[in-house]
Amino acid sequence: MSDDAIPRRRAGGRAARQAARLHQVQEAVPYITRTMRPFEVLSEDGLELIERNADTILERVGVVFRDADALERLRAAGCEVEGELVRFPRGLARSIVQASAPREFVQHARNPARSVRIGGEATVLAPAYGSPFVRDLDRGRRYGTIEDFRNFVKLAYLSPWLHHSGGTVCEPVDLPVNKRHYEMVYAHLRYSDKPFMGSVTHPLRAADTVEMARIVFGPDELERKTVVMSLINANSPLVWDATMLGAARVYAEANQAVIMTPFILAGAMSPATVAGTAAQTLAEALAGMAYVQLVRPGAPVVFGSFASSMSMQSGAPTFGTPEPALVLYTLAACARRLGVPFRSGGALTASKIPDAQAAYESANTLQPTLLAGVNFVLHAAGWLEGGLTMGYEKFVMDVDQCGMLHAFARGVDLSENGQALEAIIENGPGQHFLGSAHTLANFETAFYRSTIADNNSVEQWEAEGALDAAQRANAIWKRMLAEYEPPPMDEAVDEELREWIERKKASFPDANE
Amino acid sequence: MSDDAIPRRRAGGRAARQAARLHQVQEAVPYITRTMRPFEVLSEDGLELIERNADTILERVGVVFRDADALERLRAAGCEVEGELVRFPRGLARSIVQASAPREFVQHARNPARSVRIGGEATVLAPAYGSPFVRDLDRGRRYGTIEDFRNFVKLAYLSPWLHHSGGTVCEPVDLPVNKRHYEMVYAHLRYSDKPFMGSVTHPLRAADTVEMARIVFGPDELERKTVVMSLINANSPLVWDATMLGAARVYAEANQAVIMTPFILAGAMSPATVAGTAAQTLAEALAGMAYVQLVRPGAPVVFGSFASSMSMQSGAPTFGTPEPALVLYTLAACARRLGVPFRSGGALTASKIPDAQAAYESANTLQPTLLAGVNFVLHAAGWLEGGLTMGYEKFVMDVDQCGMLHAFARGVDLSENGQALEAIIENGPGQHFLGSAHTLANFETAFYRSTIADNNSVEQWEAEGALDAAQRANAIWKRMLAEYEPPPMDEAVDEELREWIERKKASFPDANE
Repeated sequence: MSDDAIPRRRAGGRAARQAARLHQVQEAVPYITRTMRPFEVLSEDGLELIERNADTILERVGVVFRDADALERLRAAGCEVEGELVRFPRGLARSIVQASAPREFVQHARNPARSVRIGGEATVLAPAYGSPFVRDLDRGRRYGTIEDFRNFVKLAYLSPWLHHSGGTVCEPVDLPVNKRHYEMVYAHLRYSDKPFMGSVTHPLRAADTVEMARIVFGPDELERKTVVMSLINANSPLVWDATMLGAARVYAEANQAVIMTPFILAGAMSPATVAGTAAQTLAEALAGMAYVQLVRPGAPVVFGSFASSMSMQSGAPTFGTPEPALVLYTLAACARRLGVPFRSGGALTASKIPDAQAAYESANTLQPTLLAGVNFVLHAAGWLEGGLTMGYEKFVMDVDQCGMLHAFARGVDLSENGQALEAIIENGPGQHFLGSAHTLANFETAFYRSTIADNNSVEQWEAEGALDAAQRANAIWKRMLAEYEPPPMDEAVDEELREWIERKKASFPDANE
Repeated sequence: MSDDAIPRRRAGGRAARQAARLHQVQEAVPYITRTMRPFEVLSEDGLELIERNADTILERVGVVFRDADALERLRAAGCEVEGELVRFPRGLARSIVQASAPREFVQHARNPARSVRIGGEATVLAPAYGSPFVRDLDRGRRYGTIEDFRNFVKLAYLSPWLHHSGGTVCEPVDLPVNKRHYEMVYAHLRYSDKPFMGSVTHPLRAADTVEMARIVFGPDELERKTVVMSLINANSPLVWDATMLGAARVYAEANQAVIMTPFILAGAMSPATVAGTAAQTLAEALAGMAYVQLVRPGAPVVFGSFASSMSMQSGAPTFGTPEPALVLYTLAACARRLGVPFRSGGALTASKIPDAQAAYESANTLQPTLLAGVNFVLHAAGWLEGGLTMGYEKFVMDVDQCGMLHAFARGVDLSENGQALEAIIENGPGQHFLGSAHTLANFETAFYRSTIADNNSVEQWEAEGALDAAQRANAIWKRMLAEYEPPPMDEAVDEELREWIERKKASFPDANE
């Protein structure tokens, strides 16, 4: 595991200098290392109750696996299989997971300085995932294209507070469905050097992702290094489908990471309660993770949870409300007890635009995300409209919030300089600190500097056009894209990759499924 | 203390029905009772270090008290007094406070169902305080008037998620400075029946507040009941001025509550570090609270903290950033260790308008406010522009957030209904829960229903005018004011109060100081 020693400071280079300029003083790190104990919403007794209920669900209801390999392996492991329904004896799923799933692992990036630790005290932030639409202030809402996709990969690359390039940062609907993944994976590999996520829409596309990673990282490296992490969603309640299981198997067999994620709109895909949603999610995730460990014991796996509440009037998903935050805190604690990394949270909102609703709701999820100790945070930037839309302005606004999470997670500096006792003693009552030596020495790094906030007087703000936060964000993403330069890449590798992609593309006809 | 038994459900009446209609299902309570342990950012060792540093500040630097009575009492209590500078032997301020200050107390409201508990597991939410300006979407930014003041008292009265009427909800600049307090206090007493805050701009105005409270609550009641709570700000660093101390003394002598609050823009009024700001705030608050206990041992007193960070470029105050949140968590823990109620937090922002900046920043303070276990939350609704402006739309948007804090603070329901295990067992894999008996039984109360959020499809949202959150909020406060009816009040008491006010007003000339 000597490969997994992670340098704590990022490499230099022009991109780093650009990012430094955009974000001025604060130093970027490859991931957040939390310094505080997570916030707990349930006692140990309460968490045991949730675990018991998950076991009861696995034992009495069971989980449907629409995949022959899964049914066979689970039966062999001791499950009771009836058609596609798999019932787990109490404790079996947990014991399978705990027998071999790593507590934490490293996802290696093309640039080793950007490799991330998944699990433990680490929190890794990635862009939003899966939106068919994009939105900006200039052009409004429209279908996403590969150009938009590349733009968001570039923006994530330039954002010092995002550690990960993500996956389907938006759907490039201008490309045929069955060949999109080539250009998506290529964009992550070429326009960024941060870790990325692979295709899951077909097992063959997962295999293509692994192959492309082999070209870039070297043919034998993947056995030693996890370089792709992918999102495997359940069909809640209590179903894992063939496509997702097939993709998960491809990745697990290749020693690559999967995030087994029940995606739950509570009230529709689970009961309309926090404890019920948490128990069902835990059951589904345990079943999925157990299968991954049966495919390849020790393959890196992440316990995922996406839970939103629902408008009980319209059935629409709602975000930033208290109940999903309680689910998040509960399941983060369950993941810690289980001993696996946890994925949840993000800057979630139902708002169509980057207004106050979007910001309240996003902050109401981002804060629990950090305080619960989530390890991998998909949707940390850009998400609008319940995930239907990726917003350019929302993206840079959220990244600013991600920066604040970094500063908070460092905690209180109790060094002598942090205590500032001598400064207070020297200063005395009634004298301001603006000119004190201590203030001058800490001037550059004292406080997080928001890229979005306007803190000026109302007169100055009006003189500058009385812009709202979204309008200021509009200028920021445009400047970032204008200044973008790709990270270096070995030309021969790039050429090999492009040739491989073109050969594969030419080998079968376009199709939109 | 039998007076202090607090009914947990609010009284009925038309206002309650209106409020219930506006907020539909969720039931209002007189205050939040938290069910979770607070989030901690420092270990016990870290907190002891902050306390030691506060003691060092009190011992070596001292605190200026610009008030003869204070100097005399503090000298008698064992302080070393040199001119106006008071140095406290180590541990003295703490021991004075701990000898007599109540750990918690009840502030009685005119309507006993709305009396609030200050301290312990209780969190009480009050509107923003002190803005000279008001803003709404129709009329923009302008000076506040007594009509605006009354409007905000009415809005707070109608808001089931605000427990307190607050104090200077905006400055009524159309009234002479030396007579404003009569109409402000009258508005709280007449247009609301929630607890309120008194005048502190002159000791005589504090005395007038106490007198008006006596007329309404009965001449002898105040010795038994705390019915006024008032905000006493320090002149940080390390100064308490004569006006504030004089007002504090009036209230304490009358058994009424004061919140002793260092108001700190870190980097200007304290060092630019979290630990330095926390230690200085603790020292200032300890000194102020100790004085109050010397005036009247046992008088209710609250440890207040208002701490913002500063733009180190422009000197402007900044809000919703990580460092003030760390100060808040640190000092809430210090208050718990000291054993006194704590005031801090709110929906703070530097934004001029209710945009995404305002919402992000407000949420970034509101969440720590609840999770730190703040007991009294001034500025929970309406604050804009660093407190210079009270916003109508911001007010109702923040109140919606306050509602969410209620739902979160109740925690996870682990009842059988909350666990929903039978519902999951009956439902089985692959079937949605929309029609299940459990969902139907929980339909009305399952999830917090936001009054502001739009969760509809983009098509429906566009058909309804593509409004942002602020525009939706505009309609809400107007409807609330249109439907407002004052709470009942004994006509004879009202008449006595009005006559007393008019007599006082006529007894001295108007002045603007």
